[in-house]
Amino acid sequence: MLNAIDKRILLEVADLHGIPLGAYNIRKNGQGESRNTTTNIDITTKLDKPGIDVTIKPGTKGESVHIPVIISAEGLTDVVYNTFEVGADSEVLIVAGCGIHNPGSGKAQHDGIHEFFVRRGARMRYVEKHYGEGEGSGDKILNPKTIIEVEEGGVAELELVQIKGVDHTLRDTIVKLHKNARLIVSERLLTYMNQDAESNITVELVGEDSTAQIISRSVAQDESRQIFHLNMRGYTRCRGHIQCDSIIMHSAQVSSVPEITAFDSDAQLIHEAAIGKIASEQLTKLMTLGLTEKEAEDTVLQGFLK
Amino acid sequence: MLNAIDKRILLEVADLHGIPLGAYNIRKNGQGESRNTTTNIDITTKLDKPGIDVTIKPGTKGESVHIPVIISAEGLTDVVYNTFEVGADSEVLIVAGCGIHNPGSGKAQHDGIHEFFVRRGARMRYVEKHYGEGEGSGDKILNPKTIIEVEEGGVAELELVQIKGVDHTLRDTIVKLHKNARLIVSERLLTYMNQDAESNITVELVGEDSTAQIISRSVAQDESRQIFHLNMRGYTRCRGHIQCDSIIMHSAQVSSVPEITAFDSDAQLIHEAAIGKIASEQLTKLMTLGLTEKEAEDTVLQGFLK
Repeated sequence: MLNAIDKRILLEVADLHGIPLGAYNIRKNGQGESRNTTTNIDITTKLDKPGIDVTIKPGTKGESVHIPVIISAEGLTDVVYNTFEVGADSEVLIVAGCGIHNPGSGKAQHDGIHEFFVRRGARMRYVEKHYGEGEGSGDKILNPKTIIEVEEGGVAELELVQIKGVDHTLRDTIVKLHKNARLIVSERLLTYMNQDAESNITVELVGEDSTAQIISRSVAQDESRQIFHLNMRGYTRCRGHIQCDSIIMHSAQVSSVPEITAFDSDAQLIHEAAIGKIASEQLTKLMTLGLTEKEAEDTVLQGFLK
Repeated sequence: MLNAIDKRILLEVADLHGIPLGAYNIRKNGQGESRNTTTNIDITTKLDKPGIDVTIKPGTKGESVHIPVIISAEGLTDVVYNTFEVGADSEVLIVAGCGIHNPGSGKAQHDGIHEFFVRRGARMRYVEKHYGEGEGSGDKILNPKTIIEVEEGGVAELELVQIKGVDHTLRDTIVKLHKNARLIVSERLLTYMNQDAESNITVELVGEDSTAQIISRSVAQDESRQIFHLNMRGYTRCRGHIQCDSIIMHSAQVSSVPEITAFDSDAQLIHEAAIGKIASEQLTKLMTLGLTEKEAEDTVLQGFLK
């Protein structure tokens, strides 16, 4: 049964008002809470380790899978392995948020290892939202590991968002792109207080005419620390573009360490990174429209992270 | 005595037709060859290790120091430590090329460790050209280490060029910038055949309103390999900009691993990197003007590395 706290977490991490339509698997405090499958999307429990296998039939269109994880107990470290088979020529939305409500002083941690096989010509949109809350002093920790293989002509579009309440995160994302495959990543990260975040994204462009675009935007406030390792490796005729923009405030620290490597003279790779504070002209302009400095700041940050 | 080979090397690494004007120290095959000092610029031999101390009096203007190194013997590993005291409010040009003519099959190597103190308000322009030649099969190796401290209001402008004949190079450059200090680095690198080059530049912006700009351009041809680690660290209100462009050809490999870190919310750091081949439109345009493909390619590369 989902209580009021669970429902609020579902709303934060999966934009869900109650139980989703279509296929879903809700996990709570390390256990399956409820599940629904459809004719085209099957979900089975792994036998060898905690986690599920999600199998999307070839040609499935316009369906979605929600696999939110709720953690509302302290002192829990939940490790889960999920495997996704996204069938050829399908078009699906997968929503995989995790929310932690930590009521106590012990830590609450979720490590999700997600592996995706995006088959020939399939299009997958993957949304992952991370969120933490709780009146206690216990750390809320989320360490996602995401491994994606995109076969010929496939498309993977990732939306990775963590903007509230996560104390520590180590995000590892590894993507391999085959012929004509395409990757679009949009990462949004906000840290504050004593939080720290490390995000490592490695993209291997192994197939001819594969393309990858990563846009990472972050805001670091208070004493928080962020590190980004964005790594793009081109082994053949391919195109890659990384853009990494960070707004730094207060006593925060941000480090951006991209890496582009061309192993082939037909690989075309571009990287841009910028770290700086909010443009003062933007603030001044909003304040002349009647906003306080705080409101102006919030408006700029919201626009930046949208 | 300088022979014909020595004179050609001097021309390549220091644009010198014979003996330079002003202060100079010519080093050949691990030994002092000739030296000149001026009223304002003193050069003394280090007593504890191979190398020289170059002392430029405060307020010295419009003078230059040439300290070329010639290696024309195989089987020689020459290590030299040079220290430069660039007096307050002076304006000087320091030219420190190294050329290797390796006639045999043994390796010829020069490791130059240069340390600079650019005092308050001084402006130093430092030009370092590296060049290799020789009918033999022996490797020509140049490993420069450059350490620079720029005091309040000082300016260091570096022009680092290696475009011919160096088989292996490991270039380490470390710069610390104090209040209002300024750094401008222009690096040009071309590798071909089986050559490899690694360039590591670390800039520490420790003083308020210090600024740094690094422009690195490289061309990698044949089987050659290049790695760039350009690292900028802002500890206070400061501005830094790294731009790293590489043209990759044939079976070459290029890796660009910049790092920007802001330890202060008033640090403003930007990085841009691009790896790609020569734009085909440029080649087509030059070829319609009557150039062969080879001539068109050379024209574009010359313009790029100028």
